[in-house]
Amino acid sequence: MEEKFITNAEDVEGESATFLEASRRSQAIWDDLPKHPSKYRVLTGERPTGPLHIGHLFGTLANRVRIQELGATTFIVIADYQVLTDRDSAENVGANVTEVILDYLASGLDPENGRTFFFSHSHIPELNQLLLPFMNLVTTAELDRNPTVKEEIKAAGLKQVNALMYTYPIHQAADILFCKGNVVPVGRDQLPHLELTRKIARRFNDRFAAGAPVFPIPDALLSDIPLVLGTDGQKMSKSRGNTIMLKMTAEETAKVIKGAKTDPDRNIAYDPQNRPEVANLLRLISICTGEAPEAIAAAIGDGGGGKLKAALTEALNAHLAPMRERRARYAQDPGYVKDVLRRGIARAREEGVATLQQVRRAMNMDHGLDG
Amino acid sequence: MEEKFITNAEDVEGESATFLEASRRSQAIWDDLPKHPSKYRVLTGERPTGPLHIGHLFGTLANRVRIQELGATTFIVIADYQVLTDRDSAENVGANVTEVILDYLASGLDPENGRTFFFSHSHIPELNQLLLPFMNLVTTAELDRNPTVKEEIKAAGLKQVNALMYTYPIHQAADILFCKGNVVPVGRDQLPHLELTRKIARRFNDRFAAGAPVFPIPDALLSDIPLVLGTDGQKMSKSRGNTIMLKMTAEETAKVIKGAKTDPDRNIAYDPQNRPEVANLLRLISICTGEAPEAIAAAIGDGGGGKLKAALTEALNAHLAPMRERRARYAQDPGYVKDVLRRGIARAREEGVATLQQVRRAMNMDHGLDG
Repeated sequence: MEEKFITNAEDVEGESATFLEASRRSQAIWDDLPKHPSKYRVLTGERPTGPLHIGHLFGTLANRVRIQELGATTFIVIADYQVLTDRDSAENVGANVTEVILDYLASGLDPENGRTFFFSHSHIPELNQLLLPFMNLVTTAELDRNPTVKEEIKAAGLKQVNALMYTYPIHQAADILFCKGNVVPVGRDQLPHLELTRKIARRFNDRFAAGAPVFPIPDALLSDIPLVLGTDGQKMSKSRGNTIMLKMTAEETAKVIKGAKTDPDRNIAYDPQNRPEVANLLRLISICTGEAPEAIAAAIGDGGGGKLKAALTEALNAHLAPMRERRARYAQDPGYVKDVLRRGIARAREEGVATLQQVRRAMNMDHGLDG
Repeated sequence: MEEKFITNAEDVEGESATFLEASRRSQAIWDDLPKHPSKYRVLTGERPTGPLHIGHLFGTLANRVRIQELGATTFIVIADYQVLTDRDSAENVGANVTEVILDYLASGLDPENGRTFFFSHSHIPELNQLLLPFMNLVTTAELDRNPTVKEEIKAAGLKQVNALMYTYPIHQAADILFCKGNVVPVGRDQLPHLELTRKIARRFNDRFAAGAPVFPIPDALLSDIPLVLGTDGQKMSKSRGNTIMLKMTAEETAKVIKGAKTDPDRNIAYDPQNRPEVANLLRLISICTGEAPEAIAAAIGDGGGGKLKAALTEALNAHLAPMRERRARYAQDPGYVKDVLRRGIARAREEGVATLQQVRRAMNMDHGLDG
């Protein structure tokens, strides 16, 4: 599973004016959200490339649940088509969509609250159709310059770029704007994508809807995402086997942690600079228990890597237990999972149909047929 | 109005293997079509950039009517979105769609026969969604190489290319394949577009639908299109004022022809090499009356440009009279025009919904929701 709208900000250098301005607006939204939650419509989502792990939980899902609990409406796109931006096969997409929905439900995202909706790209033709008017508003020069696309192409090691990858930031604008999303939780490195969405919304309004704007100009909602690495001190990823999937059992979790990398110094201390692997495990415990990493280290003292791992296993399994209990329950009920998706799709299509009608009218393309 | 799938072949040089092969298949279809019309589903269409003129009638519409009369099913796309590939404003699109439908009805295309359907791009979300899986199958290198896109960019004098123009051949593949069109009337210069559509159909079948192909591999239906120029001997175009619109009156037609360019030699003869303007007017008469241009010239003799123009005015107005009568009748009945479009859209959507379901299933993206 790859995060689509949230990634770590570690690679971004410098404080651009755009970032500072986005930051300021983000803070204003965090301040206002608890007071006026109904003003905010959030769009976020993932590509269903596999089940989710604790990197997603701590980096993205927990933040979504927090926003949900503040009362905002949240549309979560399961970007099935975008699985194909950097690979040819769609073999596991179907199964992965189910896994992702189970992980959403496990994390506390709640489609029964009437404000949280899960939907798949492939089932919202009206969203996808927005690609056409939006592509009119973006030049190939702008797509060539987009830094996020460049990075993703590099990350995927692609020699040839398919047109789906190339136009992906425009599709992302359609994801956000089809439901008039006005808030998008993103990491700093995703800001260029959102900047393009903001441009598309502005250009559409200016060119086709002067005086009666069709689209909001969506804002980034930036969050402090804790830096967590895999059990080997590298970037967390399912394929490296250095992470804990939400769907794992407590025993499987213990086994992965048992294989975690530490160092020979039996005295456990929080020293991110010189002992990054130990510091990472301490941070993971800290996220689960709320205690400071330094205090956790002091309590372990010279218990060594063994005691550190035991503490992490206990803390993480305790933290994940209620989620896993929910996940197991829903996994027994595939009819419910399908129903959640069906309802999310129905609601997303309502939004898409209404927006597309407005778009057609603004473009003199309703041909007297849209009522 | 610009032709979308049919343009003159004059610019294409050389006899490529692709062309010869396409030619051979085209001839086989022309031979088989009268015998087995129900095997053929034709996709063709235009961008609604203005009302149609006799260049469209003689170059495209007459051919469509001929295919219709042979019994094939014909889907005609009014490509409203694609108006924006080379311009920013969609101001007149709505009015132009009505004009184009009136011109279709005038020409003899008959939506009452149950086999001829007119629809607009903007109202078929399922067609437009096919862009996404198809973009996965085409690299940016292939789009960069497409000669037709290069030419259109040059023709439109564009400095910047928008993403809609850039991906336009992929959208055209969606136009053809959404209804499983297997025959596309094209000029030679449009063959590269169709070649890409054929590649996309093949690639989709190979990659996602091995053993149970979803798409036909559509064939070009090449036609001898008579070379007709404007009344000034230049390329026919509304903006040059050198053509006769189908919607003009007999008097307006006479006036345009009166201003036609001829030459000082009062003896009228068919000599395309040395007297191209006179030859062009003779050809136009010939198309209307079925007589050979040489015979028409001989009958005029030394009557000069005046008599030639009078003969053309008479022949063209006689040829167009029944079409104009039909056009005027339908123009009085906007409810009918809208109804024709509504019915065409409904039928096109049926096709689109069915095809998209097959596409999703093939790609493991039906998520158990498509029945």
